[in-house]
Amino acid sequence: MVNLSDLPIRDDLRGLTPYGAPQKAVRVALNVNENTHPIPADVAVDIVESLAAAILSVNRYPDREFTELRQSLAAYLNFSVEPEKRLTADDIWAANGSNEVLQQILQAFGGPGRSVLGFPPTYSMHSIIASGTGTRWISGERDAGYEISPETVTRWIAETRPDVVFLCSPNNPTGTPLSIETISAAYDATDGIVVVDEAYAEFAPDDVRSAITLLDGRERLLVSRTMSKAFAFAGARVGYLAADPAINDALRLVRLPYHLSALTQAAAVAALRHAPEMLAMVDNIRSQRDRLLEELPKLGYTPLPSWSNFVLFGGVDDPHATFEALLEQEILVRDIGIPGHLRVTAGTEAETTAFLDALASL
Amino acid sequence: MVNLSDLPIRDDLRGLTPYGAPQKAVRVALNVNENTHPIPADVAVDIVESLAAAILSVNRYPDREFTELRQSLAAYLNFSVEPEKRLTADDIWAANGSNEVLQQILQAFGGPGRSVLGFPPTYSMHSIIASGTGTRWISGERDAGYEISPETVTRWIAETRPDVVFLCSPNNPTGTPLSIETISAAYDATDGIVVVDEAYAEFAPDDVRSAITLLDGRERLLVSRTMSKAFAFAGARVGYLAADPAINDALRLVRLPYHLSALTQAAAVAALRHAPEMLAMVDNIRSQRDRLLEELPKLGYTPLPSWSNFVLFGGVDDPHATFEALLEQEILVRDIGIPGHLRVTAGTEAETTAFLDALASL
Repeated sequence: MVNLSDLPIRDDLRGLTPYGAPQKAVRVALNVNENTHPIPADVAVDIVESLAAAILSVNRYPDREFTELRQSLAAYLNFSVEPEKRLTADDIWAANGSNEVLQQILQAFGGPGRSVLGFPPTYSMHSIIASGTGTRWISGERDAGYEISPETVTRWIAETRPDVVFLCSPNNPTGTPLSIETISAAYDATDGIVVVDEAYAEFAPDDVRSAITLLDGRERLLVSRTMSKAFAFAGARVGYLAADPAINDALRLVRLPYHLSALTQAAAVAALRHAPEMLAMVDNIRSQRDRLLEELPKLGYTPLPSWSNFVLFGGVDDPHATFEALLEQEILVRDIGIPGHLRVTAGTEAETTAFLDALASL
Repeated sequence: MVNLSDLPIRDDLRGLTPYGAPQKAVRVALNVNENTHPIPADVAVDIVESLAAAILSVNRYPDREFTELRQSLAAYLNFSVEPEKRLTADDIWAANGSNEVLQQILQAFGGPGRSVLGFPPTYSMHSIIASGTGTRWISGERDAGYEISPETVTRWIAETRPDVVFLCSPNNPTGTPLSIETISAAYDATDGIVVVDEAYAEFAPDDVRSAITLLDGRERLLVSRTMSKAFAFAGARVGYLAADPAINDALRLVRLPYHLSALTQAAAVAALRHAPEMLAMVDNIRSQRDRLLEELPKLGYTPLPSWSNFVLFGGVDDPHATFEALLEQEILVRDIGIPGHLRVTAGTEAETTAFLDALASL
């Protein structure tokens, strides 16, 4: 039998193991920040009807410009974010998950001889995608409480002069806020690209301004989003970006042609037609998250502030033991490697109850 | 307004234009080697039923290992190719189109400081993907008639010592054969990776051996395929690879997690259940291709031998003028930049008739 080490793979890949949380079939899966609500039945029916229409011409290549999808995403953002200047399809890009969007950004603006500054602990794919595109990863340091002040981001940019800055708002895996002032300060401090990963933005409090409201006049600012979370669409793999049309022209140079399938485009356009109904699920999830923030201290744990659909909580003496004890009760959470902490997704009311009861029973 | 040139994009991308054939709505589109037959109605129904089931859990991430799809693809290859050793799911990899498969191969085995040897004119994405992954592209030269003898491939490998060799069998855009002896000779001549792009393999004569039959004992040989052509699935974006399981372990290090959506997996598995019915379309297309090969000389043109679903024909005095004259009759073919030549896809009987009649009328 041949082993990986027998093959002429790149030296920088030798000894690595693939990314990925365990995919276990359990009763209550609260480990990967999915939206645990299935999509509503009427939305599912509309999506299937759209897919049934799309399948009739699946022998043809899909619209390489995914124009209708870009129009639908622009309309959704204009509806939910109220940007300074109304977005059009030209301001929108999309790919198979925001991972692919971020990869394309680094293919265009990072890569060999270039660098990207990020602030761990943050979304672990950021540094993996840097590595996969040959972009040098620079680790900045967060302030106390995992936040990043305008002064901190400015100092790190001045000292490291990165080509690209990755910010995560709210941050994953901590759930903590990132202020709009920090994003604005980062932009002013660099001549490079500033990417704000807003995968969880819909779960922030209503009065929080999205970085999308900063786009007008800032052509080097890129705001990535995903349909995986608020739209309960993790299985469909749709990430997107709002940015100046010139940025999207740059991404056209590195995207693989026809990268978004006709089925992906049809399903996403149909789901976006139901934005208000989908966002109602977001409200339910936010209440369960607030319940976690309220109940965990009563059990002796110290949750961090969260603007997302999950909570990172400290005060766990032995995270590995607690993880395993919960798993024995068929409840899956995530040990993301921060000492004394575990991360749990806000699920349905029943799932949150099951988690809190199990934790209390330990 | 901001222009692309105002942005800090990579220097090697400056001045480039995006890849892509024009996507025009015409009566007879024979320009991008699609399978012009819509999928049969009973297959479409089965696919839609599978999609309707998948949508119910689309809020969850898809199976990151796409196990059922890999099993289905292995079963299809065992049925249609008769490899020396039966393939299992472990021998199979898949991604969003064979473009993404090829990109992942170069991320793992190519990249900065490494090189890939190809033989133009060939599939134009090969060199574009090399560029996108920072892999140095080496242009080999074909023999007369666009074929490549074992001696030629051996000489080029000895002289250029590439890390990866890309072969295209049958070749696109010429449609010409590549012998199994050449593939075997390429493998013996290198310690690197040999990729055989068999996107059009199902259209070859029945007695032609696929490179898949060479896999046993050759762990550095990779055979890529696609569902775009024989399976009429260009819109669904499913490319795949047969190779040693260790190769697939290497690709797991560079693939973006959850790169294949639950909808893609469900649709492809359903289509593969109907392999015999889908391959019946292949027989129709091969007869239309043979008709093109027979009729074009009668009109004074010189078609090259074709093992694919398209024909490259010479003897065109002014390819641009002929292209435009056909387009005026709403027939779209492809000018792939070979002087005196145009390329046409073998479509349905009616489409082929329309093309031949239009060409005769010029």
